Amino acid sequence: MDSRILDRIDAPSDLNPLTPDELAQVAQEVRDTIISVITERGGHLASNLGVIELTLALHRVFDSPNDSIVWDTTNQLYAHKLVTGRRDEFSDIRLQGGISGFGEPSESPHDTLCAGHAGTGLSIALGIAQSATNRESDTWTIAVVGDGAMTSGSSFEALNNIVHLNPQRMIVVLNDNGMSISENIGFLTNWRKRLITHPQYQAMIRRMTDLSKRVPTGELIYQLVKSLNDGVESFILPTMFWNEMGFRYLGPVDGHDLTQLEDTLRQAKQTTGAVPVIHVVTHKGHGYEPAEDDPVKFHQPSSPLGSSTGAPTYSKVFAQTVSRLMREDNSVVGISAAMLEGTGLAEVREEFPDRVFDVGIAEQHAVSMAAGMASTGLNPFVSIYSTFLQRAFDQVVHDVCLQNLPVTLIADRAGIVGEDGKTHHGAFDLSYLRCLPNAVVAAPINENDLQHLIHTAYLYQGPFAIRIARGTATGTPLDDELREMPIGKGYVVKEGGDVAIFALGKPAGAALEAAERLADFGIDCSVINPLFVKPLDVELILDTARKTHRIVTIEENVLAGGFGSAVLEVLSEAGLEDVSVHRIGMPDSFVEHGTAEAQRHELYLDADGIVQQVLSAFFPGGQPLTTGSKSDERTAAAD
Amino acid sequence: MDSRILDRIDAPSDLNPLTPDELAQVAQEVRDTIISVITERGGHLASNLGVIELTLALHRVFDSPNDSIVWDTTNQLYAHKLVTGRRDEFSDIRLQGGISGFGEPSESPHDTLCAGHAGTGLSIALGIAQSATNRESDTWTIAVVGDGAMTSGSSFEALNNIVHLNPQRMIVVLNDNGMSISENIGFLTNWRKRLITHPQYQAMIRRMTDLSKRVPTGELIYQLVKSLNDGVESFILPTMFWNEMGFRYLGPVDGHDLTQLEDTLRQAKQTTGAVPVIHVVTHKGHGYEPAEDDPVKFHQPSSPLGSSTGAPTYSKVFAQTVSRLMREDNSVVGISAAMLEGTGLAEVREEFPDRVFDVGIAEQHAVSMAAGMASTGLNPFVSIYSTFLQRAFDQVVHDVCLQNLPVTLIADRAGIVGEDGKTHHGAFDLSYLRCLPNAVVAAPINENDLQHLIHTAYLYQGPFAIRIARGTATGTPLDDELREMPIGKGYVVKEGGDVAIFALGKPAGAALEAAERLADFGIDCSVINPLFVKPLDVELILDTARKTHRIVTIEENVLAGGFGSAVLEVLSEAGLEDVSVHRIGMPDSFVEHGTAEAQRHELYLDADGIVQQVLSAFFPGGQPLTTGSKSDERTAAAD
Repeated sequence: MDSRILDRIDAPSDLNPLTPDELAQVAQEVRDTIISVITERGGHLASNLGVIELTLALHRVFDSPNDSIVWDTTNQLYAHKLVTGRRDEFSDIRLQGGISGFGEPSESPHDTLCAGHAGTGLSIALGIAQSATNRESDTWTIAVVGDGAMTSGSSFEALNNIVHLNPQRMIVVLNDNGMSISENIGFLTNWRKRLITHPQYQAMIRRMTDLSKRVPTGELIYQLVKSLNDGVESFILPTMFWNEMGFRYLGPVDGHDLTQLEDTLRQAKQTTGAVPVIHVVTHKGHGYEPAEDDPVKFHQPSSPLGSSTGAPTYSKVFAQTVSRLMREDNSVVGISAAMLEGTGLAEVREEFPDRVFDVGIAEQHAVSMAAGMASTGLNPFVSIYSTFLQRAFDQVVHDVCLQNLPVTLIADRAGIVGEDGKTHHGAFDLSYLRCLPNAVVAAPINENDLQHLIHTAYLYQGPFAIRIARGTATGTPLDDELREMPIGKGYVVKEGGDVAIFALGKPAGAALEAAERLADFGIDCSVINPLFVKPLDVELILDTARKTHRIVTIEENVLAGGFGSAVLEVLSEAGLEDVSVHRIGMPDSFVEHGTAEAQRHELYLDADGIVQQVLSAFFPGGQPLTTGSKSDERTAAAD
Repeated sequence: MDSRILDRIDAPSDLNPLTPDELAQVAQEVRDTIISVITERGGHLASNLGVIELTLALHRVFDSPNDSIVWDTTNQLYAHKLVTGRRDEFSDIRLQGGISGFGEPSESPHDTLCAGHAGTGLSIALGIAQSATNRESDTWTIAVVGDGAMTSGSSFEALNNIVHLNPQRMIVVLNDNGMSISENIGFLTNWRKRLITHPQYQAMIRRMTDLSKRVPTGELIYQLVKSLNDGVESFILPTMFWNEMGFRYLGPVDGHDLTQLEDTLRQAKQTTGAVPVIHVVTHKGHGYEPAEDDPVKFHQPSSPLGSSTGAPTYSKVFAQTVSRLMREDNSVVGISAAMLEGTGLAEVREEFPDRVFDVGIAEQHAVSMAAGMASTGLNPFVSIYSTFLQRAFDQVVHDVCLQNLPVTLIADRAGIVGEDGKTHHGAFDLSYLRCLPNAVVAAPINENDLQHLIHTAYLYQGPFAIRIARGTATGTPLDDELREMPIGKGYVVKEGGDVAIFALGKPAGAALEAAERLADFGIDCSVINPLFVKPLDVELILDTARKTHRIVTIEENVLAGGFGSAVLEVLSEAGLEDVSVHRIGMPDSFVEHGTAEAQRHELYLDADGIVQQVLSAFFPGGQPLTTGSKSDERTAAAD
């Protein structure tokens, strides 16, 4: 490795003097580094392998950070990180304290923004480009957008506005890898596969062909028309599509041919009058055979160090229960927004191909379509990661809750998510869902709860949201029969008279463990599964409060407006005095990347933390438990 | 009026036997009725006048409610209401207890959904159509979408998915009135101009036919190519745009020609293989000269009975203050999402045409673009109605707060909005904004507060949200100098020792009046302006609580997770006992339409209600104030 050119690349400008052969070698070194680190650590592999040459070309043609390169979804920045001064830190990517798996302005001025949600890049870039136009700056803004992000409505809103504002020195690079995260959806990605049949045009071509045969130099004209026809099929139509919108289409370009890429980027800089769109065709997983063969699996391969307790994930139990309902009732359908695999719906679709809908990265549409389906008597289950459900917030308000329609929303990956970090935690859903009229909001503490909640939602005639945690469930055996759970009723998991711990969802296991350890301090804790955040089990809360006078609430949601806040509302409304409440949850800050375990420790969401918090909140004279050297470093997340 | 045909139309089927002349007469009668009622009452005028013939044609060709007609934004349903059994109720439209100004399934089975936000119709319709496909039903689903809604990303997500699913018996009617609410934005609406100025396809065919008859060869090739170019430019492109997407384009159709409309709708029913898109060209305000001349003004003319205290609206003070900042600092820009007039930014744009951006109905893009601008040092003020800001929730989280960028969001029309009713109240913004890290959230109690808050937001280097009420401000004189207000500090408006009323924003006036009247009961109230919901003025809250032990919070937001809930959190964290809190706010239900005054009375958000609530919460033995016969009918919105 002594002779690696990459080791001499400390900034993008170090790429400039390289020869084509040397650049090819750098590309290979970058590729080798990414494969070796990510196959060991986990991370976004296939997408990063697809954009290595594009990254190098962009950095050679443009002058980052004076020019702004805006990647839509910054999980494709591994090559970028390797050539912008983070080569030596790359082996710690996504680890606690290591560099982020996403763009991160605090790491480098070359990272424009930290973006983990697709479909924002064009808008951000337009803002930057328009700003440069207003300031009469001569810097360039380049938006690099994957075809997957093009199914997102926000991308479309931006395209529309780009044409309207027509800013100076903006370039759109369409990174067409022939798939969004799971597969192609809709018309935008159809261009590549099948460049269309359009009846009027073909009729005209036919008419011209006929005509040409009736004139003396018929063969010549026939050939002309034929080549025109071929050209239209393969080249003119996509060109026209973008040009009609008001862009200047360039391409398609081989995204793994550095020379061609650089030439086209330079050509784009010469384009005037309209924003150029460069259509770059890349291959996800390029140069790594396992990822090329199965880019879906290698989109984000898990770390081989991941847990293997044998328990199913919550997503899998969701999927299995929905399948079970589907077998019994053909009004049940499933909807995913480009997350068929992650949500478990992929396996449901194998059995019910006509009743599972993947709409692409289009959460708004997913929720509104579900509302339409529910209005006709279908029973839709929409599973969207909590962080992405934010994108459909208004649709949840306006199309589901306002209409009071029986749509079940699964907020998957709610709470702490670990390595994906701050763009991906599901930290807000309890706050933004429990404020909505007509909504039922629930969270299971184990997979058996979950299957019964799904059955309950199925029977319920209104909006029903279930938040589930990322990763494996608890290993609780599943009851054979599905039960309807009473809406708004929680239950006591463990009785105790000194402190009542209301643990919502995932933290219940840690709460039980904490209760056991607190018994050693002579503190008798009850552990309660509230199960529902809306409506709350008011009776259970008040009865418990009257008994223990000390309540702890635990949730993997920010404290502001979350479950604990709802408990305070109930106690205030009842006018109960002499009840002390201590709330544990996610902090009023964005939680960085790391292992979920470390994050929970940091935030007092594990047994250690709960013990510590109960002692310090209610028994300040008592002996605090030693939780190791880390305890002092933790942020005050639980006040 | 005895001879009105409209008086015999009790259901859409009554339209079927009518002759063309009779239909034209019905259209005129509908038009006259709408003009006479809405010019008196207020309501959506221009858009409703534009779709009268389209409504009649739809009801003659399709069999509602077996067939589903889904209007995107249901403020255009006045003609529909008049021919679906609500003729006699029409004069009370938008009044308390009268029929809604929007679609309302509880009024009629002919109203599919209550939709007040643009861009949801295609998704809803696809859900319904797909449901029919799955159930093998032979009913039709027709989505009627205005061109304004086409700038919304959610519409695009739906178009994409419609092509993918290609449901049976679905028709899209594109109601092209050449404008969204304020003006045309972007490429979608350019098609119309192209169509209208170059409908030359027939000419091209004629020319080619002629050519084929006289045939000098060299000239022919030239002519062929020229014809081809002309044809592509003028006709094929818009057609192809839709056909390329995978639809079947029909049109354009004159939206005021009943025969042509019906013929095209019937033709659409015969179309197979792809979902037909019928391009209907209508004129907003058709048949009413003042509205045709100024459709922006007549989009939703105010009732002439509206208030005229002489005080400016909050929107106007926002606009004037932003203009003032713009004069001093050219980094300040304004952004609107199709609400230039409503937000006051129209007048700002007159002075600063290059620094006010109207992005169309595209709230997601508005917020992300602002983030991009802020990242380069611009100082964007984004004004969006609170109810529509819900559509950009994830962009606020992910692009503004996560990046900690200095974007100022104005949540206009926050709280009670009156006649527009349940789709338009700004009932949730405090709950969904105050849970976000890095966000500052504030609400002024008068226009002087507002101008200083805007100045404060301008100076602040992070996300800053200001919620303002609909309608006129208080008439408070504006200080000459703009002041920076300390972030997270409220102030005491009136001192008092028995009860502390924390009145956030608009309700402060009512709170002051209530405090005066409570003095007659010997109750000494302080009235406090918290000004900030996040960060809260913890010191002020705790000091006050220690003094009065009785706190009332008032807000025009749902109680769940709102301002009062934040106060409970503070008190709980401080461990204060013996403090009784009573929260007044919007209920856990969607508030129907009516006058804002009546709604506030109903919800205890006026002085009467506050007096009543203070007495019953804290002085149950005392003499309750008589607030008139209405008081018993009010819903328990304040517990």
